Amino acid sequence: MQSIEIYRRKVEKELELFFADKLSKAEDLNPVSKEMIMLLRDYTLRGGKRIRAALLFYGYLCFSDKSLEKVLKASLSMELLQSFLLIHDDVIDRDNLRRNGPTIHYSYSQIGKKRYNLDNNLHFGNSAAILVGDLACSFAIEAILTLDINPKYKLKALEELSKSVRKVLHGELLDVTSNFTEISTKDLSTIHELKTAAYSIEGPLKIGALLTGANERQTKPLSNYAIPLGKAYQLQDDILGLFGDEKEIGKPVGSDIKEGKKTLLILKALEKASNNQKNTINRLLGKQNISKKEISQLKKIVKDTGSLDYSKELIQKLAKKSIKEIKKADIRENARKFLIDFANYLISREDLAKILGQD
Amino acid sequence: MQSIEIYRRKVEKELELFFADKLSKAEDLNPVSKEMIMLLRDYTLRGGKRIRAALLFYGYLCFSDKSLEKVLKASLSMELLQSFLLIHDDVIDRDNLRRNGPTIHYSYSQIGKKRYNLDNNLHFGNSAAILVGDLACSFAIEAILTLDINPKYKLKALEELSKSVRKVLHGELLDVTSNFTEISTKDLSTIHELKTAAYSIEGPLKIGALLTGANERQTKPLSNYAIPLGKAYQLQDDILGLFGDEKEIGKPVGSDIKEGKKTLLILKALEKASNNQKNTINRLLGKQNISKKEISQLKKIVKDTGSLDYSKELIQKLAKKSIKEIKKADIRENARKFLIDFANYLISREDLAKILGQD
Repeated sequence: MQSIEIYRRKVEKELELFFADKLSKAEDLNPVSKEMIMLLRDYTLRGGKRIRAALLFYGYLCFSDKSLEKVLKASLSMELLQSFLLIHDDVIDRDNLRRNGPTIHYSYSQIGKKRYNLDNNLHFGNSAAILVGDLACSFAIEAILTLDINPKYKLKALEELSKSVRKVLHGELLDVTSNFTEISTKDLSTIHELKTAAYSIEGPLKIGALLTGANERQTKPLSNYAIPLGKAYQLQDDILGLFGDEKEIGKPVGSDIKEGKKTLLILKALEKASNNQKNTINRLLGKQNISKKEISQLKKIVKDTGSLDYSKELIQKLAKKSIKEIKKADIRENARKFLIDFANYLISREDLAKILGQD
Repeated sequence: MQSIEIYRRKVEKELELFFADKLSKAEDLNPVSKEMIMLLRDYTLRGGKRIRAALLFYGYLCFSDKSLEKVLKASLSMELLQSFLLIHDDVIDRDNLRRNGPTIHYSYSQIGKKRYNLDNNLHFGNSAAILVGDLACSFAIEAILTLDINPKYKLKALEELSKSVRKVLHGELLDVTSNFTEISTKDLSTIHELKTAAYSIEGPLKIGALLTGANERQTKPLSNYAIPLGKAYQLQDDILGLFGDEKEIGKPVGSDIKEGKKTLLILKALEKASNNQKNTINRLLGKQNISKKEISQLKKIVKDTGSLDYSKELIQKLAKKSIKEIKKADIRENARKFLIDFANYLISREDLAKILGQD
């Protein structure tokens, strides 16, 4: 979507200014503190489509077209918040790479090894990354606090930000533990709602809307639009993770399988599978050295049981609901147009790299 | 101090109400999310003298004596913020015990082992603790956001909270890395300012003051009081850590030595030491299986070089400066009385368990 691409460039410019300001004020700080900020800057600037920032902007546009420069500054907070969560997520997932570069804990583990000659450099890396993540969180809040906007609106926006963070944290732990236990499709839907829909779509839209002074009644349609769309996106993402093209999705096909992740594709396949198929799924799910042939086997079962079609139909149903809600919402036309386009964009492009989930 | 003890009980009652409210609203949440909140509640309620909460209260009292119930609610945020930082700190320090109970990461590592049969239960424990710490941070912010106080004042208070968190994060990383490098007494003073003085004393006092609508000119004397006092406290704490009574300080005497921590006691001793004494210090600092006899050896060097006296004199000098500043400040008398008593309390009681540092 062109509008997202245009917005991305604007936000990144603002992010650069934000960090330049932090670093100039950090002149009296020691090198260790400066390095924290610089590593966070590089991590934040390195990538992502800045969808959440754009959603905040269009959430604002739903009810106002004034003071757009301020909204640009506000939207930074979404990217800083994303850095906060991703940095901690990287530690949890033990990923050394993110956005085509080193994760924060990996950078620090290298610093620990090379500069400080540490034996336990991995622990040092994790420790420093926890702190850098926390720093990003505090910057995200500051970016809203310091806006030149009605104080009441800022407080409402911060409440929403805080609420959406709590949702994603609950969703994250639920997601981690779901790998170790039986889960129902209802639990899975809760995880998708907390981890993806509420945090990535509803939160930014509502925060933008609240910054115009919109009330609960006005923002309700945005939530009604965001939640089904977020769930649809997550399902689409799961399909791409198994059936997509490796280069396009940015991670090896079948990583979810290796991790033992119980996606809806897997849960529904298990529900409809023959005993034979069930055994195959249970044998391959979570298998570390799974082969391409075995992944193909799994894909066939997901197709043959009708599970793939089930997810595809559900995606269409959710997206339709989402679009229906936004069509009848009492919002400005240019924002409505964007949100309808965005819904179609999010679920239609099968060849698309992950847009939201991992950046 | 009696006034702190009285306040402690009030804050703990409010904390119980806060968590009861969270848990009642969490009724529709799943058991995993409820457990997160319950573990955080137990950890937060288990201990601490609630000094930071009391300081917020007296910061408010410096300029107003109205709406004290609201201030009590505001002061909760300091304890939630402390939980956030301690939970992450526990992961970083790999401590399994805090406030006479299990740390969050330890509790989760046990859950990982017993409930989920995990091999990598330590990593699961750390992962969950990162998320619970983040949750505590979001609760701390919410406790301020939802106060029935002038929006502008709340925003100012949140800016200060955010700033003091950044200081403690920078201080924390600086502290961790100082174990691996040469540091100067100036670096050490920076660490004490960031980690202890700004976060534990200046922050709570200023946040309380800002909630009355106090301006920068009015809060300046509180900073002038807080920074030297915080530094004095940290030095006092270092003395207790080496010369105190094990039962009273709540951790083994000489833990700092084992950790290889370069306290001012050590830095000044090294400065004045003979070559022989220097070798002994360097040999024993960071030694894991250090004996009681070796600790006594070190204590003797710290005394003989005059380093102990140096720290003691510096503590008195800093505390005097602190008291002088608050005596001339334009604040209400009952708050002034508390702050003078508090300064004397913080630096005088050699037999006292750590008050601020580790709770």
